[in-house]
Amino acid sequence: MKPLAECRVAVLGIGLMGGSLAGALRGHCRSVVGIARRSETVEDAVGRGWIDGGGTDPTAILLEVDIVVLATPVRAILRQIREFGPLFADGSLVLDLGSTKREIVEAMAGLPISVQPLGGHPMCGKETSGLEAADPGLYRGCTFILSPLERTSAEALELGRALVETVGAHPLVLDAARQDRLVATLSHLPYLLACSLVRTADAITSGDPAAWEIVAGGYRDTSRLAGGGVEMMLDILATNRRFVLEAAGVFREELDRLLRRIDVEDAEGLRESLVFSRDERRRMFP
Amino acid sequence: MKPLAECRVAVLGIGLMGGSLAGALRGHCRSVVGIARRSETVEDAVGRGWIDGGGTDPTAILLEVDIVVLATPVRAILRQIREFGPLFADGSLVLDLGSTKREIVEAMAGLPISVQPLGGHPMCGKETSGLEAADPGLYRGCTFILSPLERTSAEALELGRALVETVGAHPLVLDAARQDRLVATLSHLPYLLACSLVRTADAITSGDPAAWEIVAGGYRDTSRLAGGGVEMMLDILATNRRFVLEAAGVFREELDRLLRRIDVEDAEGLRESLVFSRDERRRMFP
Repeated sequence: MKPLAECRVAVLGIGLMGGSLAGALRGHCRSVVGIARRSETVEDAVGRGWIDGGGTDPTAILLEVDIVVLATPVRAILRQIREFGPLFADGSLVLDLGSTKREIVEAMAGLPISVQPLGGHPMCGKETSGLEAADPGLYRGCTFILSPLERTSAEALELGRALVETVGAHPLVLDAARQDRLVATLSHLPYLLACSLVRTADAITSGDPAAWEIVAGGYRDTSRLAGGGVEMMLDILATNRRFVLEAAGVFREELDRLLRRIDVEDAEGLRESLVFSRDERRRMFP
Repeated sequence: MKPLAECRVAVLGIGLMGGSLAGALRGHCRSVVGIARRSETVEDAVGRGWIDGGGTDPTAILLEVDIVVLATPVRAILRQIREFGPLFADGSLVLDLGSTKREIVEAMAGLPISVQPLGGHPMCGKETSGLEAADPGLYRGCTFILSPLERTSAEALELGRALVETVGAHPLVLDAARQDRLVATLSHLPYLLACSLVRTADAITSGDPAAWEIVAGGYRDTSRLAGGGVEMMLDILATNRRFVLEAAGVFREELDRLLRRIDVEDAEGLRESLVFSRDERRRMFP
């Protein structure tokens, strides 16, 4: 495969993630083109200097490039893999930026054998979406998971690594199921907790105007994720159901154990449990 | 009652909350003395210029002051109210800084009638405790709940307000039960969620070294409260059991409803619920 500097790159979907990636890549490869549903978005990205050009019709563009980056929500990526398979150029690298990997990697397994597929998941983002929120510095310092398939060549994985490092991120190679299980616990479950907490506060305290004056930092932090984009999360929850439900099941047991100890005034058991969590949290974030 | 500028103030417990309050008050009243278990702590606070002096024996000090601030954990405050009742000077204001108010205000109702009791709860703090973590700027901008008793005079409440404003906080007068219910939902429940999330992550992901590389901002924020002080939280949970269990019960129903919708792939119901939480979160923190 060609080195990244000689590659023509197409980014399909130039919103927050795709637009930021295009802007971070441009100047480090032969060309970066963007594909969007609306031509205004393409013009906007050109105006920002993040892409060399692009258009709204993938068929005209995909055959001409060495790397395709699928930067839409997960279920759109799944459709695109099935739909555009025949359009990917021989020997091209097809990388995605979806937050769950098992279903995507399974779909990629059905791509023509001439194509090199590689699952990707950059662990960064923002609560706002769209090209207006994009920022070529978005990937700097973040962990970028790469999930190669059995059929993915070592060269293709290396090219993926080079792309990740070029945008300032740290590549972490992980099997798709292992990544899905980890993010179910460390990212998707926290989102569901935040949403449920907001609904709880609404049910109990929304009638009391004083609630607004005492929402302290604790509530703000614990509920933060609930403000994120719903459509992206619906895709994630639909394609990571099994691991999300597993993590939530463990969480409910842990919460119930705490509540039982509070209920029966088991101060020693409660202390032991809270000390464990405190020490673990401090160990993770010293 | 005397104006604050003419009052001698004693702060019982000069850790994070009491030390910060003393430092913020000094210079705005006739004198500030500190009472601690160890004389080293008193010397340390004198060295920082936060108190005029003090000691380890409350009996020698309490009779001489116009305002007593009880700045220890909740259950120590409950003991002190019962133990030191006879030592409070006639006409003095007895204010506490405990995080739950019903049990404290009930105990205060038993104080000699010559004393003016006032429940207090400053909505600020840090994850670290002790005088080393104290900061006279800690109260600046925070909401400081005041829970007067039926017997508390208007003048005593006014003196409490003046003290709160002097340290830079905003007084908010709330009935003790109402404050306990609000903080159960907005502060104590989020703490339990954070602790349970940390245990869940430990159970599911701790065996995987990759977990450390992908703990994204979402997990960090949602779990932050778990790193806080356990002894303080044990006091809070013990004295706010009923409302904490109520809030946790509502939370479990909300979480279960989300999980059921994920399980049966009810995308529309799930979207509706997540959109509600997103809009509510954004409305609270625009």
